[in-house]
Amino acid sequence: MIAIDFSFQEWQWQYQISTTFFICVIVPAVYYVHAKYISNSPNNYNKLEEPLKLDIPIPQEAKAHWKGKRLYPPNLSIRVPNEPNKIQSYCPATGQSLGTFLTTSKEEMNQQVLKAKKAQQLWKKSPFTLRRKFLKTLSRYILENQEDIARIACRDSGKTKLDASMGEIMVTLEKLNWIIAHGERALRPSQRPGPSNLLIGLMKNGEVRYEPLGVVAALVSWNYPFHNLMGPIIASIFTGNAIIVKCSEQVIWSSKWFVDLIRLVLKSLEIDEDLVQLCCCFPEDADYFTSHPGISHITFIGSKPVAHKVVESAAKELTPCVVELGGKDSVLVLEDVKDFQALSSVILRGTFQSAGQNCIGIERVICLPKAYEKLVEIFTDRIEDFRIGSDIDQLDEIDMGAMISDNRFQSFEELIEDAVSKGAKLIHGGKPFQHPNYPQGHYFEPTLLIDVEPHMRIFQEEVFGPILTMIKATDVDNAIALANSTEYGLGNSVFGSKFNQLNDIANRLESGNVAINDFATFYVAQLPFGGVKKSGYGKFGGEEGLTGLCMAKSVVMDKPLLRLLGIATAIPPPIDYPIKDDKKAWRFIKSLNTAGYDNRIWEVIKAFEKLAKS
Amino acid sequence: MIAIDFSFQEWQWQYQISTTFFICVIVPAVYYVHAKYISNSPNNYNKLEEPLKLDIPIPQEAKAHWKGKRLYPPNLSIRVPNEPNKIQSYCPATGQSLGTFLTTSKEEMNQQVLKAKKAQQLWKKSPFTLRRKFLKTLSRYILENQEDIARIACRDSGKTKLDASMGEIMVTLEKLNWIIAHGERALRPSQRPGPSNLLIGLMKNGEVRYEPLGVVAALVSWNYPFHNLMGPIIASIFTGNAIIVKCSEQVIWSSKWFVDLIRLVLKSLEIDEDLVQLCCCFPEDADYFTSHPGISHITFIGSKPVAHKVVESAAKELTPCVVELGGKDSVLVLEDVKDFQALSSVILRGTFQSAGQNCIGIERVICLPKAYEKLVEIFTDRIEDFRIGSDIDQLDEIDMGAMISDNRFQSFEELIEDAVSKGAKLIHGGKPFQHPNYPQGHYFEPTLLIDVEPHMRIFQEEVFGPILTMIKATDVDNAIALANSTEYGLGNSVFGSKFNQLNDIANRLESGNVAINDFATFYVAQLPFGGVKKSGYGKFGGEEGLTGLCMAKSVVMDKPLLRLLGIATAIPPPIDYPIKDDKKAWRFIKSLNTAGYDNRIWEVIKAFEKLAKS
Repeated sequence: MIAIDFSFQEWQWQYQISTTFFICVIVPAVYYVHAKYISNSPNNYNKLEEPLKLDIPIPQEAKAHWKGKRLYPPNLSIRVPNEPNKIQSYCPATGQSLGTFLTTSKEEMNQQVLKAKKAQQLWKKSPFTLRRKFLKTLSRYILENQEDIARIACRDSGKTKLDASMGEIMVTLEKLNWIIAHGERALRPSQRPGPSNLLIGLMKNGEVRYEPLGVVAALVSWNYPFHNLMGPIIASIFTGNAIIVKCSEQVIWSSKWFVDLIRLVLKSLEIDEDLVQLCCCFPEDADYFTSHPGISHITFIGSKPVAHKVVESAAKELTPCVVELGGKDSVLVLEDVKDFQALSSVILRGTFQSAGQNCIGIERVICLPKAYEKLVEIFTDRIEDFRIGSDIDQLDEIDMGAMISDNRFQSFEELIEDAVSKGAKLIHGGKPFQHPNYPQGHYFEPTLLIDVEPHMRIFQEEVFGPILTMIKATDVDNAIALANSTEYGLGNSVFGSKFNQLNDIANRLESGNVAINDFATFYVAQLPFGGVKKSGYGKFGGEEGLTGLCMAKSVVMDKPLLRLLGIATAIPPPIDYPIKDDKKAWRFIKSLNTAGYDNRIWEVIKAFEKLAKS
Repeated sequence: MIAIDFSFQEWQWQYQISTTFFICVIVPAVYYVHAKYISNSPNNYNKLEEPLKLDIPIPQEAKAHWKGKRLYPPNLSIRVPNEPNKIQSYCPATGQSLGTFLTTSKEEMNQQVLKAKKAQQLWKKSPFTLRRKFLKTLSRYILENQEDIARIACRDSGKTKLDASMGEIMVTLEKLNWIIAHGERALRPSQRPGPSNLLIGLMKNGEVRYEPLGVVAALVSWNYPFHNLMGPIIASIFTGNAIIVKCSEQVIWSSKWFVDLIRLVLKSLEIDEDLVQLCCCFPEDADYFTSHPGISHITFIGSKPVAHKVVESAAKELTPCVVELGGKDSVLVLEDVKDFQALSSVILRGTFQSAGQNCIGIERVICLPKAYEKLVEIFTDRIEDFRIGSDIDQLDEIDMGAMISDNRFQSFEELIEDAVSKGAKLIHGGKPFQHPNYPQGHYFEPTLLIDVEPHMRIFQEEVFGPILTMIKATDVDNAIALANSTEYGLGNSVFGSKFNQLNDIANRLESGNVAINDFATFYVAQLPFGGVKKSGYGKFGGEEGLTGLCMAKSVVMDKPLLRLLGIATAIPPPIDYPIKDDKKAWRFIKSLNTAGYDNRIWEVIKAFEKLAKS
């Protein structure tokens, strides 16, 4: 029961309601009224934007209890022997085959660009109502088919359904609904103050308009096969562009289905489906795509070694790139944290979600001494109980799923060995895990490594796997220095009790994103996302993620009053060709500069006098 | 005399003032009061920001009537035979020697980066009042020494003093004073709406903070030796960065003096002068600089062939680049222009200023038929009278100065020959000009070429010289198509009488900048400046020019009320490790997604009910 007591002078008011009634009726009613009528929210009702209902059959491989044939070594690879233009797909959690797919040829890439260009010619003129209707239809479809989408993503990546529900579905829904709510405002022309010289400033208005670029490209990573693919597609379509997405060859099976889904949504709204196309090839053949003259912008989400190649290739056509690479994100833990148990839950989620394969995963936990002792104790206890496996059919209770492949397992072991040899302590895990039910699955044990120090390789190199490393800092300055001491600068978080101190630390961290007393919520909150240093450059997400896919056009015009009066700017006679008197022309502009920019009244008066004379 | 009559019902008021009194007293007084107390203007008075007065000796070469020794061929080159690390400077208008300079060695570049890093550590914490005081001191110095600065720029580039007064001094003063007035606001943290999911949105605040990047670099072109150099320096210093500028080897003499000037201003304000350093080398040695790991950002202003090399080199260190290249800017002239004579003056200034060596110079005049006839007649008449020469001592009346060198004269002649062979008509000019008084000067005749068509090379290729080309369009659609039909997309302008039509045309032009009924004022107005297509990417100038030199940091935190109440976000029990029940965990997030993103009240209520149960 919830009791409400209210008294004011002689007035008294009492009311009692059941908790169920409160939660099930009052809360959603208030929430709904707020969303629909008060906030500038996606739920604002607009008949023109009413989402369509779609019924799309899902592939058999994504059905519960699917009994697909397992591949056995040496066939457990995405490469098909002697067939360089074929990609083999399989589930990394079970080894079940998902079929083979042809890579996209150069000729097909050319065709894709041509088709995209054609589709974009019409789409660039589409109204925002139609663009939002597309987003709302997609959002509704995702909401009503969370189960299927999660299973498709899990099947191709080996992650758990819970990982998919948060990392794939929730973040995609948020992106969709954020753009529905705020996208049009972000793309509205931006008025600018105009020149500081009052003489010119009184005459001119300036604004920046955001217009679609044309055909853009995105090269996305495999760790979130649904979300990473959808993000650039949603932003491109909303900004009036066409997009060709190059998916990772690791997840071509699901990428194909997801792109087909988008094309079906477009088709059902009578929009040219060629606005969104999928391209897939092995890294050694990607140069043709990344230096294609028909592509106006490239978003690259991936690793640093590949980024060098992409940017170098794009330089051939001077194509602008947004480069989103990995990080060595740290969590800074001060000693005045109130609830270490709750904090440990956040750190475990940030480290082990998707088996640690997260761009903004936690790579280092940097603690002040007392916090260090407490957290080491808690993690030693909690990580011991982690259960690994496949939960696509939810037969067992599983904490962590498989990894995309086993080709980095050796480097994990080397990193751990290097650290241990230099003084770190391995508390849990540290080696590949052979699952009794899924011997072909790519599993690595959840690992806890403590007493990690800057001279160990694992302190500096991105792991991108299920390894929690603990680092002890001597004080706050040392903790900040440690956090900043790698070549990366993607994200960081800081936990403590005194907000001002945490805020000050946030200002001193060298990274594109910082969360205070939380983990990675900057990403969910649709703030512009991107790193600094060797984590890349440029932003996606939020306003910048939309305007960044546009040609920002600076337009200058006479002020409306001048237009009304028919007054136009003209070249003043003293400086018009042929110059009648060089000295006079010089004095004229000199006086104009003084009148416009000096801040001494006497100088300004003298300058005006000179101007009046010429 | 100005007569003011005012009557209202029985009231009558008459007043007469002299025009001189009005212009010399009333106008500046109103202007001053407005600037100082009403507008957010640079003239706002702040004791802490009071500019210093500096007395800096100018080089003898920049004094009026300097009698420097002339070089004679074959010594008229910036290269010194057998001395690959020496650059020779001379005045391109007279051939007078300005001395030789050593190029910057790799070891010196390393030292520069180290010194810049050290200086920036302190500068990044400097208050905006000190940064503005620096800008105001510089602005005051420029205002009081316009003559000297113009002469230094003219001596090294061969342009006229009038060209320098507008293209070097006025635009630099505007940039300084715009940043003084609006810079701090542009760098203030930008509040964001937060996530669209109300459940999360109610808890989190998000903002973007702009922090200096560290040591940035600019590679600037020779056409505006003062302004092109000052622009990146001013923006970098104001954003709290250190900068190393690589000047063009064509203008090392003046660049050195201008950078020394900046360093003197810094020193006089007790700021570390190593914040600004000059580097100069031949293009073949620039790779070491553009791929230097100590540099966080590169602004490149130059030509397309060099841009490919710079971007490719920067890819080695994943350094973000802003790339500002040339254009094939057109002026679109409709038939309803009111004053063709006034328009022709604007076009002449836009074409022949600095002998056509302008990034945003007019490269093509595209006219509807009747406008074409009128303008051809006017230009045939006006260009005939152009006088060429050196006006540094203002001995003669001069309309157009020298070019930086003669090494593109042959290509000008080839372009003209190609056009004429394909049907264009050469009305004026078309060949190099041997000046009787300055036989070593690099002069090219002001050229008028009409009946130019798209299949001629001169329609497509950037000229960057004193050649006015006239193109006849059949109608408005054709004019727009012609304007858009080159690989460049820097700037355009459009002239006519109907604003709505002009505005519509502005929207259809594929370029980063458009001026309506004016030329290039988007640049003066401090709108973000940058091109699309092969004119480059990224922006300098205006807000974006400042934020672009910053690390944009997305920071997320709990809302103040939650902090006050001590409420912190935590991982909800159903999804905390170890997961007690996979199915329940899945249902929990599924319901959370529905509650957060569905827009049907009944679905939301059901979702809340499910959440309440878990």
